[in-house]
Amino acid sequence: MAEQLYWEDVAEGMELPPLVKNPTTRQLVQYAGASGDFYEIHYALEYARGNGLEGVILHGALKNAFLGQLMTDWMGPQGALKRLSCQYRGMDLPGRPITGKGTVTRKYQQDGQFLVDCAIWLENAQGEKTTPGTATAALPSRSVGG
Amino acid sequence: MAEQLYWEDVAEGMELPPLVKNPTTRQLVQYAGASGDFYEIHYALEYARGNGLEGVILHGALKNAFLGQLMTDWMGPQGALKRLSCQYRGMDLPGRPITGKGTVTRKYQQDGQFLVDCAIWLENAQGEKTTPGTATAALPSRSVGG
Repeated sequence: MAEQLYWEDVAEGMELPPLVKNPTTRQLVQYAGASGDFYEIHYALEYARGNGLEGVILHGALKNAFLGQLMTDWMGPQGALKRLSCQYRGMDLPGRPITGKGTVTRKYQQDGQFLVDCAIWLENAQGEKTTPGTATAALPSRSVGG
Repeated sequence: MAEQLYWEDVAEGMELPPLVKNPTTRQLVQYAGASGDFYEIHYALEYARGNGLEGVILHGALKNAFLGQLMTDWMGPQGALKRLSCQYRGMDLPGRPITGKGTVTRKYQQDGQFLVDCAIWLENAQGEKTTPGTATAALPSRSVGG
């Protein structure tokens, strides 16, 4: 069972627990079925290479979902993901691990909510941030029970 | 709208209308999602070649389904497919057309049903029967209305 994170436990500059992913071509095929995105660059090697890619590449929306998991794993069940966005700056390929990372950039209250902004990204084994983004989470506060 | 085939219209030795299929890797990925069979030989080229295959190959169950379509397209909406089986003798690859074919081998009545047995198969461009099988259909009869 996931532990619950409270707003009081968070400080600006804090790092999120890293999320290691080892994507496979099988996962891309499963994601194609789940998402309905059957573009061949995500599973057909010769097609991908014919389009100038090194190999088949991860769906951008799957990488976005990995970042969502980074946030929700950290927040715990009572947290709420208010906003998440990312940019696809670099390609990631199955067979190459990628790690979701993040830091808290701002901690604040607004409209009665206890909020944290985070810088988040996926990083490859070379330390390149292929998929940087930002997210905002609303957390429970110890000051209002919960 | 499909035309209806009646038992009286069928003669032993009659050929079924051929069914041409042009399978693609995309179709195999879609079939993987639909069937839950995510074995890599059906979409991952290097994995397939590493297993001694020429390339990714069609799911056997998909070829069985093509033969099912061969039969049901022919029978029309009032026909009933009573039995179908096939053997996977040869591999078929995406990008290579295959054609479903069949002939009526027996026409008979049994237990009040108007039945036809068929020899059916998938054939590649070289005329090789990669997937031979048999099927039995129950058809409506003009003698009992319809």
